[in-house]
Amino acid sequence: MFQSAWLMRMAEPWPETQGEWNVTLTRAGNVRVLFRVRLEAGAALGEVHGAIVRAGGEIVAMETRALHADHSVRDITVAVDTEPDVRAVEQALDEVQGVKRLETLDRTFLVHVGGKIATHLKVPVVDRDDLAVVYTPGVARVCEAIRDRRDRAFEFTIRKNTVAVVSDGSAVLGLGNIGPEAAMPVMEGKAMLFKRFADVDAFPICLATQDVDEIVETVERMAPSFGGINLEDISSPRCFEIEERLRKRLDIPVFHDDQHGTAVVMLAGLINALKIVNKRMQDVSVVVAGVGAAGVACTKILLAAGVGHIVGVDRVGIIERGRHYDNPVKQWYAENTNSENRRGTLEEAVRGADVFIGVSGPGILTVGHVKQMARDPIVFAMANPIPEILPEVAAGHVRVMATGRSDYPNQINNVLCFPGMFRGALDVRARDITEEMKQAAALAIAECVPEEQLSEQYIIPSPFDPNVVPAVSRAVQAAAVRSGVARAAAPLELEEEPLYTEM
Amino acid sequence: MFQSAWLMRMAEPWPETQGEWNVTLTRAGNVRVLFRVRLEAGAALGEVHGAIVRAGGEIVAMETRALHADHSVRDITVAVDTEPDVRAVEQALDEVQGVKRLETLDRTFLVHVGGKIATHLKVPVVDRDDLAVVYTPGVARVCEAIRDRRDRAFEFTIRKNTVAVVSDGSAVLGLGNIGPEAAMPVMEGKAMLFKRFADVDAFPICLATQDVDEIVETVERMAPSFGGINLEDISSPRCFEIEERLRKRLDIPVFHDDQHGTAVVMLAGLINALKIVNKRMQDVSVVVAGVGAAGVACTKILLAAGVGHIVGVDRVGIIERGRHYDNPVKQWYAENTNSENRRGTLEEAVRGADVFIGVSGPGILTVGHVKQMARDPIVFAMANPIPEILPEVAAGHVRVMATGRSDYPNQINNVLCFPGMFRGALDVRARDITEEMKQAAALAIAECVPEEQLSEQYIIPSPFDPNVVPAVSRAVQAAAVRSGVARAAAPLELEEEPLYTEM
Repeated sequence: MFQSAWLMRMAEPWPETQGEWNVTLTRAGNVRVLFRVRLEAGAALGEVHGAIVRAGGEIVAMETRALHADHSVRDITVAVDTEPDVRAVEQALDEVQGVKRLETLDRTFLVHVGGKIATHLKVPVVDRDDLAVVYTPGVARVCEAIRDRRDRAFEFTIRKNTVAVVSDGSAVLGLGNIGPEAAMPVMEGKAMLFKRFADVDAFPICLATQDVDEIVETVERMAPSFGGINLEDISSPRCFEIEERLRKRLDIPVFHDDQHGTAVVMLAGLINALKIVNKRMQDVSVVVAGVGAAGVACTKILLAAGVGHIVGVDRVGIIERGRHYDNPVKQWYAENTNSENRRGTLEEAVRGADVFIGVSGPGILTVGHVKQMARDPIVFAMANPIPEILPEVAAGHVRVMATGRSDYPNQINNVLCFPGMFRGALDVRARDITEEMKQAAALAIAECVPEEQLSEQYIIPSPFDPNVVPAVSRAVQAAAVRSGVARAAAPLELEEEPLYTEM
Repeated sequence: MFQSAWLMRMAEPWPETQGEWNVTLTRAGNVRVLFRVRLEAGAALGEVHGAIVRAGGEIVAMETRALHADHSVRDITVAVDTEPDVRAVEQALDEVQGVKRLETLDRTFLVHVGGKIATHLKVPVVDRDDLAVVYTPGVARVCEAIRDRRDRAFEFTIRKNTVAVVSDGSAVLGLGNIGPEAAMPVMEGKAMLFKRFADVDAFPICLATQDVDEIVETVERMAPSFGGINLEDISSPRCFEIEERLRKRLDIPVFHDDQHGTAVVMLAGLINALKIVNKRMQDVSVVVAGVGAAGVACTKILLAAGVGHIVGVDRVGIIERGRHYDNPVKQWYAENTNSENRRGTLEEAVRGADVFIGVSGPGILTVGHVKQMARDPIVFAMANPIPEILPEVAAGHVRVMATGRSDYPNQINNVLCFPGMFRGALDVRARDITEEMKQAAALAIAECVPEEQLSEQYIIPSPFDPNVVPAVSRAVQAAAVRSGVARAAAPLELEEEPLYTEM
């Protein structure tokens, strides 16, 4: 719940709107909306007031933005009971002579004013003595210590705890290629989740290029400021090459969340779903619908987890074993899946399958399809916002169902993975995120659902379950040590048998 | 003053040192130092304790870092009275059988553990409802609004208040080319000052390249995340081209602080110094010693302020009018200064000069030089840490003296400029920082010294004077509007005559 009142500070981007504004937001069971209006000199403020009240609004605050001879600009914060009342107030305002509405900002926009993250000083700077420690001349000794041994940067700079959230804005949410500026609110939100869930400091970097070479170069050049790189919302198949090249060139973890975050949480859910239907990973046959970033990553993690039979389906149909594909990712797919060499459409693919993993589009899976699956079908319909099949449609035909949505049970939500993954990777100063670390994370997430509570409606923990991040972090640290990518060893309390590496 | 106690959290970079540590720091009139020691299994902890106490130390805390069959690693926090006691404790520890000191960390290092800045969430994320506002699905509407009108990014993302502090680590403090990792503590410190003094969010970006084209490209590509670019500690003459090209290519303010920060504060001091000696800007003759980044910027701001007679001096001697120089910056200098075409050494240059501006090296200015200056000599000896002439040496021969040091009166400190400069530039969403804005900032800083207090020992305000940033910001905003680079107009309260620009 948002705090009852807070203050926002802004200059303004809008025509004729200047200066600062103070907004008091509360959530006392109603909706607060800010109307920015232009009033001609002749317009009576009393009429504006009356119109708002008659439309069912209550004026909470009014600020003058600009005062000219012929007109003024005012911010009017209005409390209404419901969303339709907002439209009623807008209409009422439009009917007042000499009033022109410039903007209507609701809570979502008001929360975004000035961005959602800020810099926080970890130590206060009160006097010249403090200044001399955090800045010149004291800081010079720390600089020299790092100059003499570069890995000290992981100890005495923000690299120790800071991740870049990098996007080129080419595949943002369901919005597509909206560019770097428009992608920023998502990356800022992601940075908030890093901090909120795992105390990882994260900073959003949106790049004004969509060229693979340029993205790789740019991230490589800025890497000295960061302890890890979280790639985000970069379109397929470019995302594969970008991640692969950065992993090779950087000695800090690089993780494309749209791929691996989804894959890890999907695997966690599947581990638990298989317990319910009493099948083993190596025995099940899986259909993956959609072979973009998430689909390929899901396939890879399933292969690594021991699944033997995977068939991929794209818009055209089944990815055929041995066929030549121009797209190198599909080529890889053709060489590494579909060992029985099935051909045909989605319908062919799902026949007899135990598990359907959907990372494709809305409504592609029908009840008819599900009926052809093996006994106790498991369907993860993760397309957002509209899944491949709606739970209410699939009901009675599937045994275990998961989606990407928060309004159904079993949400496959990346936030279960990336905070703990980076918390663990940073804490052991991992130089990479290995397959073993991803498998460990999936298992740790799965185990956050207590055995006795495990059921068709509860295969995956809540993002707000406080056990998830510590469990994932510990599992990732131990796996990093086993993989040989941990440069600082895991903390004392990690295991009974301490995992110290002598460096 | 640092808060009396605080907690630090870390994994570790050092051989055999693992996990977390909790350090309690106080400043109760003594020095706290953390010793990390390796104890062989045979060594008695009691002996360690005894040795520390006998050497004059008091054990504040002890943490076990690792516990092996043959040895352990411990962090011992010790309070001592003075700096020499630290050495005494070190020596005492070295004499205990089976003890090996691994690290000694004093306050400056301890303050730097994990870096000095962190991410702060501007709105809390408590429940799924909050999540839906700051992240999916709510955030999508904000993304769409920016996609539809890109300048909304300056309203609804951190661009509104965020500056990148960019360095390539090529000319850091007095340390020279120490590289990007070692430069980070300085850039983090700078970010702290931005926040502390002007509530500007700043993020340090240290680049793993020193190629001019690559630096320009990289900064340009990351620009969508920032509202301004503060270049820092980039060596001359590369810094000139980098700044010039970025200013042309970006629509946000780009400011190389080593150049313009120094120049603005120097000009502020000179404005006040000239009041004391009762001379006018256009009448004085100025010698600038050192024609690097700061020297060239000082010269440019003095020319813009109306100074007619400027002579530059580098290591070789006077920069001669009309002579050809390979270095384009010196070529510019030769064409735009030294109208009387003086030749020779520093001694020639200072003869009859009213003002000496030193941004060169230690001790180059002698009492003999100063004696040859015009009446009431003004000497700004800004080389750090050792000025061109020490105030105690110049005493009796100069009328007004300033340095870059905090332990003498009249410190020319950049922190008087850059926080207010960016505060003002961000608040009117300036697309550039113009000469007029720099002049306005200098005048505003100068005016923070009350006329009645103005004296030889007080020509420049303290960095902690709370009037400075607001005054600089207001002046910069007004100048930005006059220069035509303000995209959002200045706040209502800025001037009696509102400065709104209709956009």
